[in-house]
Formats: sequence, structure tokens, C-alpha cells
Amino acid sequence: MRPIKTKNRIKVLKNLLQQRKDEAIFISKRVNVRYLTGFTGSNGSLLVFAHSDLPSIFFTDGRYGEQATIELTDSDCDDTTISVSNPQGPKLLEQVGSEVLRHDIRNLLIEASDLTVSTLEDIRTFLATHISTVPSQGIVETLRRKKDDTEIYAIERACEIADQALSNVKGLLLERVSERDFAIELEYQMMKLGADERSFASIVASGSRSSLPHGHPTQKTITEGDIVVVDFGATFMGYHSDCTRTYSIGEPTAFAAEVFELVSEAQRKVIALTKENALGKTLDETARDVLRTKDLEHRFNHGLGHGVGLEIHEDPFISARNESALDLGYVITVEPGVYIPGEFGVRIEDTLVVTKESARALTKIDKDWILT
Amino acid sequence: MRPIKTKNRIKVLKNLLQQRKDEAIFISKRVNVRYLTGFTGSNGSLLVFAHSDLPSIFFTDGRYGEQATIELTDSDCDDTTISVSNPQGPKLLEQVGSEVLRHDIRNLLIEASDLTVSTLEDIRTFLATHISTVPSQGIVETLRRKKDDTEIYAIERACEIADQALSNVKGLLLERVSERDFAIELEYQMMKLGADERSFASIVASGSRSSLPHGHPTQKTITEGDIVVVDFGATFMGYHSDCTRTYSIGEPTAFAAEVFELVSEAQRKVIALTKENALGKTLDETARDVLRTKDLEHRFNHGLGHGVGLEIHEDPFISARNESALDLGYVITVEPGVYIPGEFGVRIEDTLVVTKESARALTKIDKDWILT
Repeated sequence: MRPIKTKNRIKVLKNLLQQRKDEAIFISKRVNVRYLTGFTGSNGSLLVFAHSDLPSIFFTDGRYGEQATIELTDSDCDDTTISVSNPQGPKLLEQVGSEVLRHDIRNLLIEASDLTVSTLEDIRTFLATHISTVPSQGIVETLRRKKDDTEIYAIERACEIADQALSNVKGLLLERVSERDFAIELEYQMMKLGADERSFASIVASGSRSSLPHGHPTQKTITEGDIVVVDFGATFMGYHSDCTRTYSIGEPTAFAAEVFELVSEAQRKVIALTKENALGKTLDETARDVLRTKDLEHRFNHGLGHGVGLEIHEDPFISARNESALDLGYVITVEPGVYIPGEFGVRIEDTLVVTKESARALTKIDKDWILT
Repeated sequence: MRPIKTKNRIKVLKNLLQQRKDEAIFISKRVNVRYLTGFTGSNGSLLVFAHSDLPSIFFTDGRYGEQATIELTDSDCDDTTISVSNPQGPKLLEQVGSEVLRHDIRNLLIEASDLTVSTLEDIRTFLATHISTVPSQGIVETLRRKKDDTEIYAIERACEIADQALSNVKGLLLERVSERDFAIELEYQMMKLGADERSFASIVASGSRSSLPHGHPTQKTITEGDIVVVDFGATFMGYHSDCTRTYSIGEPTAFAAEVFELVSEAQRKVIALTKENALGKTLDETARDVLRTKDLEHRFNHGLGHGVGLEIHEDPFISARNESALDLGYVITVEPGVYIPGEFGVRIEDTLVVTKESARALTKIDKDWILT
């Protein structure tokens, strides 16, 4: 297992801060700290200065000092000093405050969607009154959209584990298993095959419950005549996979078959257009146009897809509101669905990496949907 | 599975707000919302007014409207109006703002350790300038310390599931299983036995790794001569269990046996003193006094225990700094440990409920530690 290399990531962030004419940013969001430094523990934060000569400062507590030294070294983290608080010495946030003062920062960016009100108050306690804390949104998230080769390797490995796990347990769907037991077996297989964790609590929704886009698995037994939606994933080296398959237990009704074919066609058409420079809203509209041919566009009540990486849902979000273009190395899902309340639902989802002329699917398990 | 009843909980909170001379509180922390209303979804918040005649207002989005109605009814939630936002109407936080304005609240308490800076800014956008948002800490957490019978039932059931799971897989420790595979089998058993989830990522640390108080399971094979620390738990109806057992694979060294006996004695002495009105710091000191007899007090580098409920770690925290007394219905852990760096560690932990004259252990799996 090669560690993910973080080299140059802080450098890119510094360039961005310089362009924005910002002086420094305090990174508290755990996945952003991991992205920039390679640190995997539960308590770490990072102070990054725009000035290219100033080392960044990584803050953690005594439990993680040794781990931080190892992980930041292994990941080739850009020039960063590690500051470990101990119960006798100054508190972690006091250390942050004193570093901000020492470097004469006047405006400190904070991650407003992550930092709690009380942590911000605690930091402010240690700052002089002439220093402002400035809420910011999505700065590191923007950098995280484009994946490098090692990140794509990790996501692909997560997808392979998930594919293999589903393939191992698919047969249970014909054996009157409950939704809950199927989810338990699927997740157990992912762990046995080398997942760090599951990506999220699996969705297993059968019969009329399949019309719930986010059906939590219940004790309901999966039986002949059910449509079953299975939405699941694994993580590997911190990176997520995301995949949905829909199955018919026995022969589907003519209407269900028509819906399945329509959703398949929508997904195929979108994937054919997914490449560098494609617009998010164009992809979304493409899927809805296909569903509109059978007057089912109003039964697709969520976005078409989302970025996948250190978070299961991250930038970019693929929807009618996304006017921006895909770039090389973006990893996204394409997941059209149709939900007929009280009857059934169909969703088909793959995780794909954007390349120059096409999109390469990282989830590869077959889409044969009729199980008999 | 009886739903947990939340009746009177909001009433108790209202009384507390009246005593504090507060007007209203906005509850955003998910487990606090669950505690007060019974709602289990991922997006719900609650506005509670001190005035006894004013119904509380529960806010959620379209995905959860139906679920909220069912869950708040099933739990006998105190008088609460459900406000569901939809994509066309005003945003959720705008609704919160307009309710605060409508009821002429001047000072709105917020949960400072939970609410993010950006959510607070969004709420403030919809408030008039004469309205203040006032950071608060731990108000609902204080109410959550004392568990009622249904909560104790749920925790006890979680403990039973965890006990049975460990009992089912314990034999693997003698079969050269890896730490990681043991954790996977243990967690799989808890799920099969009816857990909602695991309480936290299990700790399985063997050999010299057992001296790490929070050793993440690795590929290391557990072999003859190892000491193994297993710290794990299940959740049931949202409530957690927490238990640690230490095993010796084959005969332990004389020193390890001495340490095990000392930690056992510390735990027994503390449990004997755990009852209504016992002081947290007295319990902590009792454990350290026992370890001091063998000059091992400095090898116990964490708190003695913590409350367990909707969170795995919650009020009260049992340490030298806790000057307050235990009350009837508190559920806490007692978990002394000794860690000899590079050699081995021993920790023994039970989850207990405080009663009038004693403490009743909810984790009951035996403490026989030598496996041969």
C-alpha cells in the first residue's frame, strides 16, 4: 500500500492564497487536513501562510505526535512544522493564536462550514483585537476536485473491493434474505476484501420501498416480484467508492422493464458525453431529456451525480445549477433514477474518472438486472 | 422494539430555560434533537421557547417530513409543530429566523460546540439587528446524564449484544487470527445479533501494540505470548455500549499477571464505591491509589470513565477534575488501565448504571483473561 503523496498540495494552496490576497488560513476540516498533510488521526489542524517561505504549522495533541511525524514524512508533505500540545503546556488553540500573532497576520481565513462557533471563540480569545477571523468556504475543496494518479488508484481499488463484494453476495437476493441481512453480508464482504470502512450506511430497499431514494435496510424479506435497489461503497486509503445496482427478483412487469431500460439509456447517454470540458448542467439535462421521452422526468427528484474522493459527496455536484466544466482527473458519479411512489424505483450509478475524450468507469460490476 | 418516549423532556428543558432567564434555544446537535423529539433522521433541528405555552418548532426538509411526523408521535414528544422546507419555499434557516422574529425573541441561545460558523451566519442573515445569538454549552447534555428506564433498557440490550458477540468469536484469538480480522468478525457478529451499528471503530491491539490505549487493528497476527486489548461496543435504538477485555494468549509473564491483578483490583474497588452521591474525583483517586501501591499510577494516562448514552462519550466525565456527585440513573464506564510502552497494556472496562446503594454492571461477559 503506497502512501498518498501530498507533495506540492500546500504549495498550490499558498499560490491560491496569494492570488486571493489572503495572508493565512486555518484548516480545521479533517479531510482537508488529511489531503494537505497525509495525517489520518482524529485531532489535527493546520495553519498555512500565503508567504512561500513560511513553513506551515500542524497542530495536534500528545496522542498523535509520533503518528503525525511519520505520516507527514511518508506523504512528502510540503514544509511543515509539527506542534504538539501537552496537558501541562499551552492549549492547542492558544498555540494557534500565538503563531498568528507571531507572524503578524491581520486577517485569518477560517473554514466556516467546519469550524464550530465555540472553537472560533476559543481561537479569538488568544488573538489581539486588531486581528480578524474571516469566514471562507470551499477553498481546499476546490483543490481536491482534480485527483492525481495515486488518488485514482485508491478510488479504483475501493471500487474493485465493492464490485467483488456485491458479486460474492448477489446470490442471496434469490434466497429470501432480509434487506438488513443482505446489507450486513455485503458490508462484511467489503471488510474481508480489504476495505478500510464502508463508504456510507448501505441502502438496500426492496419492493415498494425501492421507490425511497434513501431506503434504510429493514427486516423486510426480499421476495419474488420485488425490485431491489442496492447503493453501497467501500473506502480504501481514505478514498470512497459509490455504486448502485437495481435488481428484479424474477421477471419484472412490462412497466418496470420499460423504466429500467429508460434509466439505463439515460446513464449510457450521459456517460458517452462525460469528458474534459463537458458542462455539469449539460449532463444533467441529457439525463432528464431521456426520461422526458416517457414523461418520467418528474420522477427523477435528485441531482445527477457528485464528486467522490476523501468524502462520499464532494465537489463538483452535477446538477442543472452547475455551469462549470469538468476537468481531467475529476472523479464523479452518474446516477439517474426514476421513483414511482408506492410501486418501485430504479437507480443505476457508477463512479467514473474524467479523461480527455471520455470517462472511464471505476465501478465495473455488470448491470444484468433480472435475477432468476 | 418499544420506541424511546421523549414525553416531558422538552418541558424539563423549558423549566431550565426559565430558571436561567433565557427566552429560547436553537438545538442543532443531532443527538440532542433525537433526545428531545425521537427523530432519527440526518436533518432536523428544534427551536424551544422558555414560555410554557409556546409549542416548540421542529425543522426538517422534504425528505424527512413524513418520518418526523411518525417519530415525534411515536415518542410522545411534547407539544411541537413540524415545519418542512421545500425547494420552492423559504429555506430552512429562513424559517428559523422568521419564527424567532415572530415570537419577539431578543436573545437566542445556540449550541456553540455544534453549530458551525457558516450556519450561524446564515441564521443571522434572517434576524433583525436587535436580536442576539448567544453561545451556550452543554445545556441538553446536562439533562441527558440521567437515564430513564427505557434508555437503560436500550443500553443494556446493546451491552448484551456486544457480550454475546465477543463470546461467539473469542475462540479465534487462539487461532492465529489478525487483529483486523478479529475486529471484522466481532463487528459482524454484533450486526447479526441485532445491533444498529458498532459503537465506534473497535480497538484490537496485541503484543507490544497493546500498550497503545487506542490501537487501531492491523494485519498483525495474534500469537502465543501476546497480551490483547479488545475495546468495542454496539448501539441499540441509538444507545451505545462500551466494554474492554484484556486477554493473555497462553500463560502471561509474572509481571503481566501482576499488572492484570492490580488493574482488576482497581476496577473492583471503584465499582464497589460507585453509587448515588459518589464523587467522580473520589472514584478516579481510588483507582490511582490502587495502582500507586505498585508504583504504576503514572502508567494510567487517561480518565477513569465517562457517561454513555446517545453518544459513546458524554457527560459525566469521571476524572480527578470532576467534583460533582453521581446521580441515580447515570450510566458510566469504569475503565482503569496500565500501559507499559513497548511491552504490553491492560485495560478492563464495564458499562454500569448508578443505583442507590451500588452500581449494576450492564456489560457482563466474564473477565477470565488467560486463554489456552
